[in-house]
Amino acid sequence: MRILVLGGDGYLGWPTALHLSDRGHDVAVLDNFARRSYDDEMGVRSLVPIEPLQRRAQVWHEVSGKRIDVLVGDLCDADFTTDALRRFRPDAVVHYAEQRAAPYSMIDRKHAVYTQYNNVVGTMNVMFAIAELDRDIHLVKLGTMGEYGTPNIDIEEGWLEVEHNGRKDRMLYPKKPGSFYHLSKVHDSHNIEFGCRIWGLRATDLNQGVVYGQQTDQTARDARLATRFDYDAIFGTVLNRFVIQAVLGHPLTVYGTGGQTRGLIDIRDTVECIRLACENPADSGEFRVFNQMTESMSVADIAKTVAASFPDGVDIEYLDNPRVEQAEHYYNVVHTGLVELGLAPHLLSDTLIESLLGVAEAHKDRVDLAAMRPTVNWRSTASPLR
Amino acid sequence: MRILVLGGDGYLGWPTALHLSDRGHDVAVLDNFARRSYDDEMGVRSLVPIEPLQRRAQVWHEVSGKRIDVLVGDLCDADFTTDALRRFRPDAVVHYAEQRAAPYSMIDRKHAVYTQYNNVVGTMNVMFAIAELDRDIHLVKLGTMGEYGTPNIDIEEGWLEVEHNGRKDRMLYPKKPGSFYHLSKVHDSHNIEFGCRIWGLRATDLNQGVVYGQQTDQTARDARLATRFDYDAIFGTVLNRFVIQAVLGHPLTVYGTGGQTRGLIDIRDTVECIRLACENPADSGEFRVFNQMTESMSVADIAKTVAASFPDGVDIEYLDNPRVEQAEHYYNVVHTGLVELGLAPHLLSDTLIESLLGVAEAHKDRVDLAAMRPTVNWRSTASPLR
Repeated sequence: MRILVLGGDGYLGWPTALHLSDRGHDVAVLDNFARRSYDDEMGVRSLVPIEPLQRRAQVWHEVSGKRIDVLVGDLCDADFTTDALRRFRPDAVVHYAEQRAAPYSMIDRKHAVYTQYNNVVGTMNVMFAIAELDRDIHLVKLGTMGEYGTPNIDIEEGWLEVEHNGRKDRMLYPKKPGSFYHLSKVHDSHNIEFGCRIWGLRATDLNQGVVYGQQTDQTARDARLATRFDYDAIFGTVLNRFVIQAVLGHPLTVYGTGGQTRGLIDIRDTVECIRLACENPADSGEFRVFNQMTESMSVADIAKTVAASFPDGVDIEYLDNPRVEQAEHYYNVVHTGLVELGLAPHLLSDTLIESLLGVAEAHKDRVDLAAMRPTVNWRSTASPLR
Repeated sequence: MRILVLGGDGYLGWPTALHLSDRGHDVAVLDNFARRSYDDEMGVRSLVPIEPLQRRAQVWHEVSGKRIDVLVGDLCDADFTTDALRRFRPDAVVHYAEQRAAPYSMIDRKHAVYTQYNNVVGTMNVMFAIAELDRDIHLVKLGTMGEYGTPNIDIEEGWLEVEHNGRKDRMLYPKKPGSFYHLSKVHDSHNIEFGCRIWGLRATDLNQGVVYGQQTDQTARDARLATRFDYDAIFGTVLNRFVIQAVLGHPLTVYGTGGQTRGLIDIRDTVECIRLACENPADSGEFRVFNQMTESMSVADIAKTVAASFPDGVDIEYLDNPRVEQAEHYYNVVHTGLVELGLAPHLLSDTLIESLLGVAEAHKDRVDLAAMRPTVNWRSTASPLR
């Protein structure tokens, strides 16, 4: 298949492009390097050094003999977006190209508006480009488990059979997102469902859990193929951040009681989920939703699991929670759709944590300690930065 | 109370400002005249001539002795928005200032993106201004019944008690909106509910039905106080459009079978609902939703009701439906919240239709017939305009 990966320079976009290319697909990546510019803005960087995108594509060609085209531009530029799809003519578009950090969206008004504008308008331009060019192009869109919040009922895969006053309907699962970023993904989901309904688009919305890990079979083939590894309080995801804190001998910083439960997924499963979604497209007019996570764990349990890998022990420090969220809550998520397509999950294990510890150990001289303290507070409309 | 009416130059914003002023509130109106510029863009105009906003405010002062301040600017300009709230210091903000026509949002990509950007970003700027200045300012936001779509279960007022696999939660009512415009209001609702949750904002979201009528007690006091009366295929609402077609001796144009049911409300009830919402504010942190409509009627029945006022008869013409919507559907809406606050609804009657017929008759020489034919098709990404 011909697959265009939007946001193909990012933490997951790049390994996804490699995995799809390795499995024989014709892949192009598109990016505007917004993620690298957030680093510049925040004064942080990936723990693991990363090469320029064009260089990475060249190394992949050296290593594998396969080519990945690189397209540079912004999805908010509708002409560029339409032109990119017209030139590459994909069978599937994998869409990672959004601002993806909840804390970044909660810094202040400017960052909140930027996040919603960038994500919603970029996605609308992709939808319109597909509708204009070829409505059979399958849109594989990255959502987030954070769209659902923490309802007191089971979380189904995007749709809910509702019975009310003796009548029934199949409805979009009600959402209660926890940041302006998570809200932007809820807006996207509603817009895309509408596109399926009126234009007959084929779409798969992947509500992804918190991703951990840094290596895939493909990135491991050459150090220059490495993907980012973020540990700062804005872009670092919780397990990756704990691993780095542990390696440095710092306490693991848990927000609140740590009773908040998260859906998790290994980066190797993420890239495989995307392959499965692309190779098994949604039907014409279908808005298909999968919950892209493989297990649930409380933040406190994630901290304990990381700490258990250190015989001498690691301290766990409980900070005031800068987010507004329930401290303890019910969390039971259906995530069978991708397993039915063939996903064989990697579950969190000591082995995995040890390999991550190795990555962190190798680069620990690059850590900026100040970047790890949370500065963004959900209750404020203007959080101080560093 | 001090009440700031955003979009106070519009079809409903202006009569609302007059009604609130008449009832003793200190009122200011804010507008960027986007609605007048859509007229210029589309080459149409209000059937009833309207004065400039500043002139209308002056006439109201002559007629009533009361002042209405006029603020001119765009809510998408955050500095202007924050400054306007800081200067006027309202107790309540009534927010009509959005692009409000489904067909306009469905013209093409540019109009779809404009609608979502304008509505969502403008509302975010209002939320941030309130959160920064005074979280007790009550946000009274106009939504639309079109956010719900036509579910096969009863439509509750914004929230739904869900029971699923033996567990329960109170959740935002699932939405299935029918245009990029309706989607923008769904996005707003999600953003505002979040603002209530994290910042303790007080908000009332009014999901309004299709409004009919042109006069209120206040606008009737002087011809120069008149509000707009739109009949074109983009901005004209269905009952108002039928009245004008009937007066001209043209067939009433019904889309599809006319089996689509709509919630309706008289313009005099709209302005009263806003007064009731302002004078009975939502609690701190409460996202309160009312369905602002007083009765339901199928489009075919609306046409028959208008036709019945003409002894010689009026033809009804069934056109292909340019929208993508269900031809026949269940529609049962709870709308008790505003009645409990004291609303005494005007229901659609022959008297009302006759008074509207008088308005249409008086201005029928201004009608542009070509403006009444639908040109925007939901299935297309680039509809031809006139």
